[in-house]
Formats: sequence, C-alpha cells, structure tokens
Amino acid sequence: MVSNSDPLHQESSVDPGALLKVAVIGAGYWGPNLARNFKASQAWELSAIVDQDRGRALKVAGPLGDVPVFESLDALLSSIEVDAVAIATPARTHHLIALAALEAGKHVLVEKPLAGSRELGMAMVDAAAERGLVLMADHTYCYTPAVMKIRELIEQGELGDILFIDSVRINLGLVQPDVDVFWDLAPHDLSIIDFIMPGGLRPDSVAAHGADPLGTGKACVGHLTFALPNNAMAHINVNWLSPTKIRQMIIGGTKRTLVWDDLVPQQRISVYDRGINFEKASTSAAQRQAQAISYRMGDTWSPALPEKEPLGLMVAEFAASIREGRSARTSGLAGMRVLNVLEAASRSLEQGGERSFVASIDVQLEGTR
Amino acid sequence: MVSNSDPLHQESSVDPGALLKVAVIGAGYWGPNLARNFKASQAWELSAIVDQDRGRALKVAGPLGDVPVFESLDALLSSIEVDAVAIATPARTHHLIALAALEAGKHVLVEKPLAGSRELGMAMVDAAAERGLVLMADHTYCYTPAVMKIRELIEQGELGDILFIDSVRINLGLVQPDVDVFWDLAPHDLSIIDFIMPGGLRPDSVAAHGADPLGTGKACVGHLTFALPNNAMAHINVNWLSPTKIRQMIIGGTKRTLVWDDLVPQQRISVYDRGINFEKASTSAAQRQAQAISYRMGDTWSPALPEKEPLGLMVAEFAASIREGRSARTSGLAGMRVLNVLEAASRSLEQGGERSFVASIDVQLEGTR
Amino acid sequence: MVSNSDPLHQESSVDPGALLKVAVIGAGYWGPNLARNFKASQAWELSAIVDQDRGRALKVAGPLGDVPVFESLDALLSSIEVDAVAIATPARTHHLIALAALEAGKHVLVEKPLAGSRELGMAMVDAAAERGLVLMADHTYCYTPAVMKIRELIEQGELGDILFIDSVRINLGLVQPDVDVFWDLAPHDLSIIDFIMPGGLRPDSVAAHGADPLGTGKACVGHLTFALPNNAMAHINVNWLSPTKIRQMIIGGTKRTLVWDDLVPQQRISVYDRGINFEKASTSAAQRQAQAISYRMGDTWSPALPEKEPLGLMVAEFAASIREGRSARTSGLAGMRVLNVLEAASRSLEQGGERSFVASIDVQLEGTR
Amino acid sequence: MVSNSDPLHQESSVDPGALLKVAVIGAGYWGPNLARNFKASQAWELSAIVDQDRGRALKVAGPLGDVPVFESLDALLSSIEVDAVAIATPARTHHLIALAALEAGKHVLVEKPLAGSRELGMAMVDAAAERGLVLMADHTYCYTPAVMKIRELIEQGELGDILFIDSVRINLGLVQPDVDVFWDLAPHDLSIIDFIMPGGLRPDSVAAHGADPLGTGKACVGHLTFALPNNAMAHINVNWLSPTKIRQMIIGGTKRTLVWDDLVPQQRISVYDRGINFEKASTSAAQRQAQAISYRMGDTWSPALPEKEPLGLMVAEFAASIREGRSARTSGLAGMRVLNVLEAASRSLEQGGERSFVASIDVQLEGTR
Repeated sequence: MVSNSDPLHQESSVDPGALLKVAVIGAGYWGPNLARNFKASQAWELSAIVDQDRGRALKVAGPLGDVPVFESLDALLSSIEVDAVAIATPARTHHLIALAALEAGKHVLVEKPLAGSRELGMAMVDAAAERGLVLMADHTYCYTPAVMKIRELIEQGELGDILFIDSVRINLGLVQPDVDVFWDLAPHDLSIIDFIMPGGLRPDSVAAHGADPLGTGKACVGHLTFALPNNAMAHINVNWLSPTKIRQMIIGGTKRTLVWDDLVPQQRISVYDRGINFEKASTSAAQRQAQAISYRMGDTWSPALPEKEPLGLMVAEFAASIREGRSARTSGLAGMRVLNVLEAASRSLEQGGERSFVASIDVQLEGTR
Repeated sequence: MVSNSDPLHQESSVDPGALLKVAVIGAGYWGPNLARNFKASQAWELSAIVDQDRGRALKVAGPLGDVPVFESLDALLSSIEVDAVAIATPARTHHLIALAALEAGKHVLVEKPLAGSRELGMAMVDAAAERGLVLMADHTYCYTPAVMKIRELIEQGELGDILFIDSVRINLGLVQPDVDVFWDLAPHDLSIIDFIMPGGLRPDSVAAHGADPLGTGKACVGHLTFALPNNAMAHINVNWLSPTKIRQMIIGGTKRTLVWDDLVPQQRISVYDRGINFEKASTSAAQRQAQAISYRMGDTWSPALPEKEPLGLMVAEFAASIREGRSARTSGLAGMRVLNVLEAASRSLEQGGERSFVASIDVQLEGTR
Repeated sequence: MVSNSDPLHQESSVDPGALLKVAVIGAGYWGPNLARNFKASQAWELSAIVDQDRGRALKVAGPLGDVPVFESLDALLSSIEVDAVAIATPARTHHLIALAALEAGKHVLVEKPLAGSRELGMAMVDAAAERGLVLMADHTYCYTPAVMKIRELIEQGELGDILFIDSVRINLGLVQPDVDVFWDLAPHDLSIIDFIMPGGLRPDSVAAHGADPLGTGKACVGHLTFALPNNAMAHINVNWLSPTKIRQMIIGGTKRTLVWDDLVPQQRISVYDRGINFEKASTSAAQRQAQAISYRMGDTWSPALPEKEPLGLMVAEFAASIREGRSARTSGLAGMRVLNVLEAASRSLEQGGERSFVASIDVQLEGTR
Repeated sequence: MVSNSDPLHQESSVDPGALLKVAVIGAGYWGPNLARNFKASQAWELSAIVDQDRGRALKVAGPLGDVPVFESLDALLSSIEVDAVAIATPARTHHLIALAALEAGKHVLVEKPLAGSRELGMAMVDAAAERGLVLMADHTYCYTPAVMKIRELIEQGELGDILFIDSVRINLGLVQPDVDVFWDLAPHDLSIIDFIMPGGLRPDSVAAHGADPLGTGKACVGHLTFALPNNAMAHINVNWLSPTKIRQMIIGGTKRTLVWDDLVPQQRISVYDRGINFEKASTSAAQRQAQAISYRMGDTWSPALPEKEPLGLMVAEFAASIREGRSARTSGLAGMRVLNVLEAASRSLEQGGERSFVASIDVQLEGTR
C-alpha cells in the first residue's frame, strides 16, 4: 500500500536518464510558444505537433527541426510513443483531449482555463488521480520571476497580513465569440492569487459585475470581488475596451504594501514600507476610535529580479513533477480552484451581481495545493 | 407670477454694482481655501470667518486682512449683514447650519457631501427652493480645467456613446471615525460623473463592495459599480490603504477613449483614437458573431488645458447664479444625486454587495440639472 | 553610355522574377537577426551563413532550415553563387571582407560603423561605385516607424526650423576592449540625425568630452556637440555606466517640438505645440529686447505608428536598391558621414575637447544622399 | 587675538534670547518667498520689505501683517534697526546693495548668483570677512530633503567613488534680456554639486557649448562639462526651449548609482545597486582587457524623504550661522565657487567651446567650505 501524502500514487516508470517525450496539441496562438520551450528544454524531447490543420502544424514544426506532425490525438497515439501531451486548443475541447490522453497513460499539461466547466474539469482531475498521472495547469504567470518573488515575500511575512489585493488587467483585446472577458483574462489574476496566498484561492463566494455595451453578446468589461481571509478583499478588473494597457496588482499588507507593475521591466516590483498603524483588539467602537492611528512613510525597495523565461521554468516543473511522482506546482487542483471561481462569477453576472457561492474542492483530493 | 423655468423663482434683490458679502463657516481643512478664494474674487467681499474655535478662526482671518471672526452662525447673523454663507464644517452639521442660514434668507454653498442623509439634504433643497435662494454644492472638481474639458468633449460627441467609466482614487488616507472611504472619497467621482454625463448621475441601483481589514469599524477599501445608459457601466475604486497615489479616470466611448490622469500636470487628459469597431443591429447571436470586429489604432491627442484655480471659478459661479437668479451649475440637486448614490451604496455594503435602489428625485423639482 | 544621375551606373543584371541570394557573414550578436530577416523576406533567399566558428554558424543555420554553412568568404565564393553579402563581423574586419566581396561583384550590406577609419571606409565606397554595386549601411534605426515618421514630419515642415537636437542613449553597457562608448553607441544617433535632417549630417566640426573613470582604457561616458544649420545645435550623450536606461531624443523646432522616447512603446513620439515665439530681424540689441517674446502652450499629439519590423524593411530596401540600380536609402555615403563625425570626435577627445574638423565628402561622389 | 578656525572672527553681538531682525530687499519673483519664510520662522522677525516700486512692496507686506515698507536700503537703514538683509534683486545689483549693507554692519543673504562677476563677488566676500559678518548664498536646493540625503549618502560612502554626474534642467523658460541660460539655470546644478561633492566644486577648467537659434542675443541651450576628481566627469544640460520639463541628476558611483528625479514627488531618489565591477591596477592594455568585467544587477532602493520646506531650513541656517559666529553652510565662498565656474563657462562659450580655466579661491580665505 502506498502511504504517500501526495495524490499521485505513482511508481514513476520514467527512465531517469532519458529525455521525456512530449507532443504539443494545438498550433494556434499559444502552442508554438509551448513547442519552442519544450524544444529548448534539457528535460524534454519535442516529439510531435498535433493540429487538425496540417499546414498550421507544419509551420510550427518546420523551424523547430521538422518535428513530426499529426492531425489528431488518435493519429499521434497510434504512431509514436510519448510520455506527455501539452494541450493548447480552445478551452471547450480541453476535456475530451485530456481524458483521451490520460486514458492512454499520458501526463497532461493544459492551457488555462482547465476546462469549460467545473464538472468537466473534475473528470480530468479524477482521471489523472486514478492513474497516478500528472495533470498540470499552465498557469504561466506563476513561473515569472515577479510572481515567484511576491510569493516568497508573502511567505516570509515581509508584507504582514494581507489587507487587500487589487488587480487591473485592461487592454484593447480581441472580442471573442465564445468566452467573455472574465474567462479570457481573469484566469491570470486568479491563478496568481491562488499561487501567492498562503492558503490558495478559496473564497466562499464572489460577485461579478460586467457590461456588454457594444452588444457583442459577451461581457467586455468586468469587475470581480471576493473576500480574502481576515476581512481582506480582492478585486479584479478586466477590460477588453481600454486603449491603455494596464497590468498592475497592488497587495496591501499590515507591514508593507507591494505594487507589481508588469509593464515596467526595470522595476516591476516595488515594496513600500508605508502604511497605517492601527491597533486592533479593543472592545467597543468608542475605544477603537480613541486608539492611535499613525502613519509610516518609510523607504521603497525594488528587488532585482532574474531574467528567466517563465515557460522554460514551467516545462521544467512539468518534467520534475513527472520524474518525482508528485503534483505539479500549478496542479490540476489549482486549475480547479480557478475554474470554480470563474463558474461562480458567471452565475453572479447572470444574476446582476448577486454573490454566488464558489464550489469547494473535496478535501480528500487535496494532499497538496 | 413668475413663469421662470428655473427652480429659483427669485426676484434678485442683489445690487448689481456692489460686491456680494459672504461668511465662511468652518476654519478647519477646507474653509481656509474657500476664504482665500472669496478674498481674491472680484465678485465677493469676505465679511467673516465663523468657527466655534475662535483661535482657529483668527488664524485664517489674520493673514487675509483681519477679517471679522464669530463663534457661531447666530453671532454672525445678529452682528453683520451678509448675502451668503459657505459651509465647510463636518458633514453631519451641514443640515442645521444650512437651514438656519436659508431661513435667514442667505444663499448657501455647502462642502461635499451635501448632508449626512437624503432626508436632511432634501430639507435643505426644499428650504432653498421655497425661498428662491441659491443652494450650491461645492463640487470643486467640476471647476477644474480637466473636467470642464471632458464635459465639453462628451457634449460635442468626440467620444461617441459612453461604453464604460472607470475611476480610481486611492492613496494613503486618514482613517476617519465617522465616515467610511465611500463617503470620504467617492463624492468626488460621483459629482464628476454627474457633471460630465449628458443626463447626469441617475443610476437605478448600485452595488458596493468594501472591506475593513484593520477593524476600524469603517470600510477602508471600496468598489462601487452601477449601470450607465445604453448598457454601459461605471466603476469607482476608493482606497485609504494604498501607498501609491492614483487618481485616474478612463472613459471609454464608441468613437474615442479618454484617460484623465490627474497626477500628470503636463498631460492630464489623453484622448485615444483607438478602439473596437463593432457593428450592432443583427438579429441573432450567430449573426452577431459573424459580424466584423475591427480595431482602430489611431493617434493620441492631449488638449492644452488653461491654468485656472477651480475654487476661483467656483466662487465666481456662486456669485453669478445669485445675481442671475438661477441654479448654480453644481446645484443642490446635483448634491442630492450624489447623496442618493452614497446612501444606496451604504445599504448595498450592509447587505454584502446586493444591488440597492437609488432614490430618484422628484421630477418637478428639476427644472434644470 | 549611362547618364544616370545615380552614382550606381549599373545595368542591373538581376532577374526580376527570381529571388536575390544573400549570405550573412558573422554569426555573433547581430548576424542571426539579419539571417532571420533575410529568411523571412519575400525578396531574398538566404543562401549561406559564414563564420570562422563553424559551430556558431550551425547554431544560426539550423533553426532556419539547415542553411549551408561556410568558414570563410573564400569558401563561400568558391562554392555557391550569391548576389550579395551582409557583413556582421567586428568593425575592424569590415573593410577586408567588403572589398573582397565587392571585387567578386557582390552587393554589400555592412553593419555600423561602416569601417574602422575614414580611409578604409572610402576605399569601400570607391570600390562599390567603380563596379556599380550597392554598398549599404545597416542603419537599422532609420527603418523604424518612429524615425520614418520623424523624418516625414520634419520634411513636411511640421516642426518648423530645427533649433536643437538632444539625444540621450545611456544604459548599463558592456565595456568593450577595442571601441569606446562613442563608437559603440553614437553611430545610432548620428545615423538618425543624418536621416532626419533635410541636408543630412554635415557638421564642420565637433567637440567630444568623455571620461574613463574606471580606467578601462576607453571612454565609458561621452558627450558630443556640434552645430546644425541656422545656429542650431546637436548634443549626444552616450554612457555605458548608467543603471537606468534612457533612449530619448528631443528635437526642438520653431513651430513645434518633438520628443521621441523609444522606451514607451504605446506613445513613442509626442509632438508638442508649445514653444517660444520670438521675432528676429531687428538691428540692435536694445530693439531685440523690446521685441515680443510670447509662449504657445498648445496641444500635444502622438501619431499612431504602424508595427513594423525595421530589419524587414531594411532588407527589403537592400533588395529594391539592387533591383532598381540605385543607392540604398542608407547608403555607403551615409555610413561615411557617420564615420567622419566619429573620427573627428575621437580626435577632439584626444585633444581634451577641442573642436575638431569633420572631413567632408567629395561632392562629385554624392549624386544622392 | 582670535584663533578661530572659522573665517568669521566674530564676537557675536546678538542677544541669544531675542529674535533676529531682517529686511527683504526686492519684492519681485523670489523676494515674497523669502519674506514668507522669514515671517514663519521662529528665529526671525520680518522687519521690512524694500523695493523701489512701493506698490510692489506693499503687495508683499500687506498679507504678512502690514510689515513696514521702504523704497531704498538707505531709507531702511536710516529708519529702523535690523540685524540682516536678504537680497533678492536682479543679479547685477547684488554687489552695491550687499556692500552697503555690510558696511552698515548687517549680515547678508544673497540670491544666486552671488554677483555679476568674480571681482564684485570677491569684494563682497572680503567685506564680510573683514567685519566678521555672515555672507550667505541662497543656494535653496542645498536645503531640500533630497539634496541633503544625497550629500549624506555620498559622505557615508554608499555610492563609492563618483564616476560621473549628469544633470539635466530643461523647460520652457523665459528668454531673458541680460542673462543667458547658463547664468539663469546652471547655478542650481553647480551649487548642488558644490554641496554634495566631498571636496566641493573645484574644477580646473570647464567647456561650455551653447546655441542661440532664435537670435535672442543670448544662449538658450547649453551644455557644460568639467572634470571631477579621479577622472570622473560632470555634465550639465540647461535649456529654455524644451516643452517637456526634466529635472534629473544621475550620480554614478563605483558602488551604487543614484538617480534624482525632482518631478516624481513620491520617489525623488532611487539608489541602484547596479553597475560594472572592473578591477583596475594592471600594467598593460592587454592585461586590462583580460581582466574581469562583471555586472551587478542588485536591488533598487528609494529612501523616504521628510516633507520639509527648504526655504524654512535655509533661513534657520542663516540665523544659526549668525548666532554661532560661523560661516553659513552655503557660504559666500560657496557662491564664489559657483560664480567662478559661470565666468569660465562664459569665456569658453565665447571661444567656441574651448576649455577655459576656472579661477581658484585664495586658500587662506577658506577656513571652511
């Protein structure tokens, strides 16, 4: 009997000396980036590109050294041996492809969002868990030096308790026929919050407000709010109609406040030793008001961040989690936590912004985050 | 009988040649600014400073040429003649002072918010209307060159139909014992939206989400959302805990989008000729999806703004509205529209963010905005 | 006899239907960029990569579809047919490689600076002119949308007469053993000024001030000043020791002033309709003082710039100049004008900043700029 | 005999309990600022405003509590007792007013530049020294929190040895009839460098390049370069024709580099722990090249700066230097060091940028900086 605390009860069958073999499925927008990083990785052999559109697959495969090309997962599986597949197809197709690959014993990396619905996503998580396979969510931002530094600073207590998180991700964006702006952009913010918050992303409920002023049939402007532990709150602003691009997250803490501006390459993270000192603990409102409120106007500090390609780190983590028989750092369950919030947001949006409960994840499943 | 379309059925008793006389009530944070601008105005004579704390009043009165000082409105009214009073005392006291002044036949300027509640505010509006006196809201931002330019551009159709308004007003702020962050900061954003939107600020309902992570008893972080005409939406973000100061409003339109960044003195307003061209009008969702969506990546333009002191323009408008027997541009009713939204926001906040209806204003009252 | 006003008295022997064949020489820092752009071009066939270090050449050639590799120009020329070579080797080697290629009848593109000295550069220009071959300087910045727009605005008179040009190009840079900071960075600024100024870069003299505070043997900080027509002046600041990166050029004109900030992708160019109105023409100093000086504080305007890869435009221009038998837009003579200023700057630097004359270019040579 | 190391051999005759009395001479642009700060000071009594234009003097005197007004220094001196005068008249008049005041036994504060020429300035310094009076230069920037912090960081060795100083001070400025842009703006940069460099401002020579493209009779664009100790260099860029305002000083050091951006109120100073590590000391160029050059890409740090009014600190220092019988921190000699560089710059400018020697200051005079 396996008494591993990890959900992957896997006797790793991977030859430690050999490269892992991977096929990238989907040669559209994101697939070529994955393919390039698998190609460049010391841990992987890029074995195939799969796309219904053979020409599109060839365009990706050619410059990477004429990697073999297939038009379907079936064709791939019946022709060559791979250890893993990376799925970069439209979200609504993730589920079927992932299940087929898992049933064939392949480890699976899935582009965000994990699936089109909570139900389909859980089927993928269950299928992977049953077979002891790695199901990994491609939460790319969690592998950027900035987000890794933010997680480290929070873990070390440098910010103190979190008071609020405010994330703005707005830009002129492609109005899409089958996803709204929440499903398109908010997975980034949600997966980052899941990664940096000590307890992960676990709100009880969320409220979503949006608008479709162009009559596209989908919200193009959106605001998502939910509670964080200790009466803190998170807000996410996503917008496809803004001519100025903003990618900024402010994380307020009792000790310091961090501002991450992803568009300032030389100084992405600033940590402000400024804030309000407020002593809690009194019994009455009157006493509270009498308590001392004071200001700290301390120094600002910007940590140097290494120049590292996040996708390179991500594919390395995919390989490491397979070899070590453990969950990936951005696991299928992390993908589920994001998906559950997105589903609740959609329900809230339909109900005019009413708070909507977020499904929780079966605790037994969660050996790790 | 007066058949003036203006709500002020006033036979102006003001001598057109003479200066109008005003007393400033409240010598705390804002009163000195008002006093300085009345003193510098060609239209006003600053007749008195009134404050319970005589020393504080004298500190304001001295450098302005030893203006007379009184410790109460009663003392003022029984001693000298004034045409108007400007009230810059705490919000909860506006009502009593304003009513007493109106009853004594004085025109009244009131610092934002107009009053502590809708009921008290309406009593002020009614009292002024009955007596044909000007009741003006000190919505200072509406007299800044930037906001006047924004109103002008919208009126002229330069932005097209409004798609969204997103306003961020965050800074390290004084946590206050009796107002939360909505009542402290959002009146600015709301009065600006009231001023620039062709129909004024008239949402049916609002949703407010906030947090009090320091346990001060009042929300320190807040988000307010409401619908604008034509399926557009507005969002206001107010925050006392942010170490970085942001004062930015983005106004998206079908033709152009305007970004107002109040902290960039040399280029406060930028108008982007960028956006999404989307043809509405089709019957089915399928047809809509088939419709052309295209992008415009045009030029950016920053209008030169004159350097004018907004408070100077505001006191000039106060004088002009009195002399011309008309409502002020930022009238008591404008103050009411802001107050009604604030009250609804407080209710929404208490109910965990549920949409709360905004009281409407009796149409008969509104001869003008 | 050919009576073409163009210095290239060339009967173009190029088959208009076929692709032009090019070899890239030098697989170090810049060569791979050239190779990639030739590969992607509709006008070119990338026929070979040449580098003494075969492994380095293979690394470039592989991902581009296993382009043939050679270890020397001789090996290339004796093995395959090409129409042109692109030289991206260290500056001191440009001369020999270019002359050999020109003698073999090949058109030549050379990375900046054209050569290690004026004398060697002129030999290259002469050799190309004698044979009716294109010698082109790879002044990449002249093909960026920003610089092309600046040239256009100046040509159209939008800025009026130029009053000053101030260019800052500072960053933490690689201290190099055989070039100083002037030769490393200033060719960019000089080639841009050559391109945008109606008469090209033709100062009589320059003054250069520099410092080598680390004792590296080469100036790491440098300032270059020279006169522009009509009593205007240019200043170029280059610096390898600055931890902040600045790439900014301010071009002041009598009508408007343009600021180009290359690090602000969304708004690289701003045109300020601000300035000083000053009437010249009076006879005495006293009269001058009496003349009206006034200010214009007009609007600011940022033209939309297309997203185009400058190297792609540059290789297209190389092909077009060959096919049309004309000088390239950034010709060998443009390279010479830059080289002459660099040489004079070095002399000035040696003489403690004394003005040093800039060699002029034989007028007969210059059929075109 | 006095054996004080301070140049002021003064038996202070000032009553330690009483306020010092001061008259401000000149009610134009700067005088009112001085008057306001003397008025607000705990150490000073503002006794009079002096201006030839009585109306102008009254406009300043009125709001400050009807301070007495005089039309000349003589009228002042024959009417009331003062300890000191502060001179804010045009530069060419400083000399006569200061000498008359010193001869009457008054301490003197002089706006920058100290005088119209080196000779006149030295006469002022000598006159003050003879009488044991304080002659202080109003180098206001040296009392800003930013500059005081920079001086402190350099003193503590936080930057290491200085490698370069680059100061840019450009803006749309008033073209003036009798000073050029160097004399108008560079005194700021020069007095700051004098204050922050351990040895003060003592270049052997300077080179100045300028232009007068509008034909105003005075340079409107200027660049000043000079050597700093240890082969470092300073560059100052002043410009009246720039539509964008830049006030930035970069101070590169062997250990860290400091960037001071005076237009970013919330983060004026940034200290970059980035740079180039280069080992000096080798004998040959070949060895130098073989030496290790490496990069440090460390953190960035912005010290919190107190909010203090520099003019308030400056008038306090004026009082303290009088009471303590010592030189002021920005003494007349500091003013002379700035003046000497300005004179040399003017000579260099006349000679087309040729290096011009800077007069040195008699060592005996300099007990202190």
